[in-house]
Amino acid sequence: MPAVLVPQERDFPRWYQDVIAKAQVAENGPVRGTMVIRPWGYAIWERLQAAVDQRIKATGAQNAYFPLLIPEAFMRREAEHVEGFSPELAVVTHGGGKELEEPAVVRPTSETIVNSSFARWISSYRDLPLLINQWANAVRWELRPRLLLRSSEFLWQEGHTAHATREDAHAYALRILDEVYADAMVEELAIPVFRGRKTEREKFAGAEISWPCEGVMRDGRALQMATSHELGQNFARAFGIQFADRDGQLRHVWQTSWGVTTRLLGAMIMVHGDDHGLRVPPRLAPIQVVVVVARAGEGVIEAATAVVDELERAGVRVELDDRVEVSLGRRIIDHELRGVPVRVELGPRDVAAGQAVVARRARAEKEILALRAFAELPQMLVDDQAALLTQATTLRDARTRPARSIDEARELASEGFARLPWRACGAEGEHRLAQAGASVRCLVREDGAPVDDPDAVGVDALVARAY
Amino acid sequence: MPAVLVPQERDFPRWYQDVIAKAQVAENGPVRGTMVIRPWGYAIWERLQAAVDQRIKATGAQNAYFPLLIPEAFMRREAEHVEGFSPELAVVTHGGGKELEEPAVVRPTSETIVNSSFARWISSYRDLPLLINQWANAVRWELRPRLLLRSSEFLWQEGHTAHATREDAHAYALRILDEVYADAMVEELAIPVFRGRKTEREKFAGAEISWPCEGVMRDGRALQMATSHELGQNFARAFGIQFADRDGQLRHVWQTSWGVTTRLLGAMIMVHGDDHGLRVPPRLAPIQVVVVVARAGEGVIEAATAVVDELERAGVRVELDDRVEVSLGRRIIDHELRGVPVRVELGPRDVAAGQAVVARRARAEKEILALRAFAELPQMLVDDQAALLTQATTLRDARTRPARSIDEARELASEGFARLPWRACGAEGEHRLAQAGASVRCLVREDGAPVDDPDAVGVDALVARAY
Repeated sequence: MPAVLVPQERDFPRWYQDVIAKAQVAENGPVRGTMVIRPWGYAIWERLQAAVDQRIKATGAQNAYFPLLIPEAFMRREAEHVEGFSPELAVVTHGGGKELEEPAVVRPTSETIVNSSFARWISSYRDLPLLINQWANAVRWELRPRLLLRSSEFLWQEGHTAHATREDAHAYALRILDEVYADAMVEELAIPVFRGRKTEREKFAGAEISWPCEGVMRDGRALQMATSHELGQNFARAFGIQFADRDGQLRHVWQTSWGVTTRLLGAMIMVHGDDHGLRVPPRLAPIQVVVVVARAGEGVIEAATAVVDELERAGVRVELDDRVEVSLGRRIIDHELRGVPVRVELGPRDVAAGQAVVARRARAEKEILALRAFAELPQMLVDDQAALLTQATTLRDARTRPARSIDEARELASEGFARLPWRACGAEGEHRLAQAGASVRCLVREDGAPVDDPDAVGVDALVARAY
Repeated sequence: MPAVLVPQERDFPRWYQDVIAKAQVAENGPVRGTMVIRPWGYAIWERLQAAVDQRIKATGAQNAYFPLLIPEAFMRREAEHVEGFSPELAVVTHGGGKELEEPAVVRPTSETIVNSSFARWISSYRDLPLLINQWANAVRWELRPRLLLRSSEFLWQEGHTAHATREDAHAYALRILDEVYADAMVEELAIPVFRGRKTEREKFAGAEISWPCEGVMRDGRALQMATSHELGQNFARAFGIQFADRDGQLRHVWQTSWGVTTRLLGAMIMVHGDDHGLRVPPRLAPIQVVVVVARAGEGVIEAATAVVDELERAGVRVELDDRVEVSLGRRIIDHELRGVPVRVELGPRDVAAGQAVVARRARAEKEILALRAFAELPQMLVDDQAALLTQATTLRDARTRPARSIDEARELASEGFARLPWRACGAEGEHRLAQAGASVRCLVREDGAPVDDPDAVGVDALVARAY
């Protein structure tokens, strides 16, 4: 049987394009860089979205919606922000058949428009903290688009908050990083991430500090999977967001913003996918178990239906594949491509023997399971979720190696992350790395605590080539 | 106490603007016609969205996502479609700092871009029916924008389907109208709707038949709350969507499209709202019960907390208002403005008497409820959901009156719906009504069945002034 996909080892980027197409996750849209998210990909996104949304709400934030179209002048109010985003803007110049008096940009991010509302909503310390999130699309014109990872339009959530003190904003930005992002990535996506601090060079345009989650892909490249920013008072000053404090004094608020995008689907593909296709973590899988009627025969449909019913009653998301007119091999290939976590195969001989073949996407070998033992299946899904996380952690650890010099870091970055003391790198070293196509993904401390002072002893730079 | 809102009787449009602002549902965005949906409004939308989404999925449709930006040329492929939407388009002419070779329109609706994908996805009868839905934003430049009802950007779901036969498309379009839209409106929004057929003049640009749900607002005006369209083969021909049928013959698919928008929030406001504020149906209310500590005193906080805990355990969405530093009157006004269905007031004397005051937004009088009887509260929410539907049905029936002539219909349309035999109106009568600011909202049959033939005996036109 010829390989269904280009093997990862041979050409990882092509494997990536290939699996996205054949697993029907997404495809390119007609306007360059845009994408269509197909039902299978979207159903995974919906589950991830629900998991992230639940965690965001648990921090006390509320969802809202702000306009897609932003007056061009708004973007110019914060100097670094406009400089960072200008090259990526899509601009609406005509509306309702006429040229607009003032062009509107399609939101690349919503700090400016959200804060124009915050200036009206906030007047007293009693209004703080104000914790707002929105689920939306955003447009950033990409010169080198890549499906899901770097698309001209993407879906995301963007959080925007205002606080009375710098300390409160700082604590909240880190809470989002830990309790929302890192937790969802580990528990739902089964992907371990480095939580760190961006260098001045890499931080968000308009932020004082950016805190990212960085993941390690199978090919050793880095992917920024989330960021949480401390904006200081930059936007508060630009938009005049002040509050009367307890002492009656007018003060500017301290702010954060933070987001994750459909890029997370790309991470799931590049961390867990193999030469047979996707491997969707069971917690996110729209279908967790597919029960395949291998061949028609006495009692087979009945046995398959009984398994489906039992699993549904146990709360498992299950699909019956009784398309016996399609070859079994073809159907197995499709289910493996889509990354359905568990496949149960049932033919006449299996039914006669009172058993079924169970193929788990997270493991190499098939197993035999007695039909009366299917109560064990939900636990298999829990185990396989854990197995994917273990495999991804092993991958990350193997791909993360210590370096003592910039040259060594540059070399190691061709295969993964190099961990180099930041004092041995610095802004100048960072510049040299950039020329070689590598970058400092984030700064981390040996003890795992947040990096307060980048120049302190014990702060390492994680260097990699990034998507 | 001065009225918080302009009374509905005095100035309904101003009451509407007023209540949206004071209940913090939404506000205008900086680009003309756009809107910010504030947390309270968005939380109601989220619940409605979940209720509609569940019903859509129950019909077998899957969610997906298509690009916001559509090549301008796509819009021109279907003649009526481009004619209908051209005046409302927002056009992106610049991206990434350069003028685009081909301008892109911001989706006003996605028939064209969805069908360019369908042409690739569909090749055989086995691929049919293809049932796709998306939740997204859309932009239609509005000359006379009105918050939530007619905004330049709105949120919605749009369904797009392809079928092997006209009959199948017809049945599915009506299934969406009945099982998804009308059902969600009655059961969730507590709003009864007329299901009918649009006249040729009023149908969707590019459709063969449009089936709307029309609601009657408190001021007697009509609001189109949903539409389900049979597109025939118009887009299939424009985009070349063909399938090989069982007999090997290539045929064009038959299609439907259908949508509901954030306009439904406007309907909820205009059907249920009163001079005190919103009345949110309990099933959609983000907070169903607010337990108000009227005054501090012995055991009051404890008693209030016990009520909150008991209601939470019973699955009620409940909020504790213990802000005794704010006047009780002010807090009551706020809860009434937001339309929280049930307010429980507890002060020292109530607690001493082992009781609480219960104010239900759907009823006029307050009641006394023993603290040991709070197990009854969930049933009150069910009853009040039903009460709102009953009140809205009474309103609709009172506002719908028979007319025998176009002149009479025109007159009645100043206060509600006029029901006039379509044969007594016709396209010419429709034209005359339009000149007087009224329109045929839909055609219905006396027996309630779908209107197959508009010109048949027993088909009535529902005439009204519409939002």
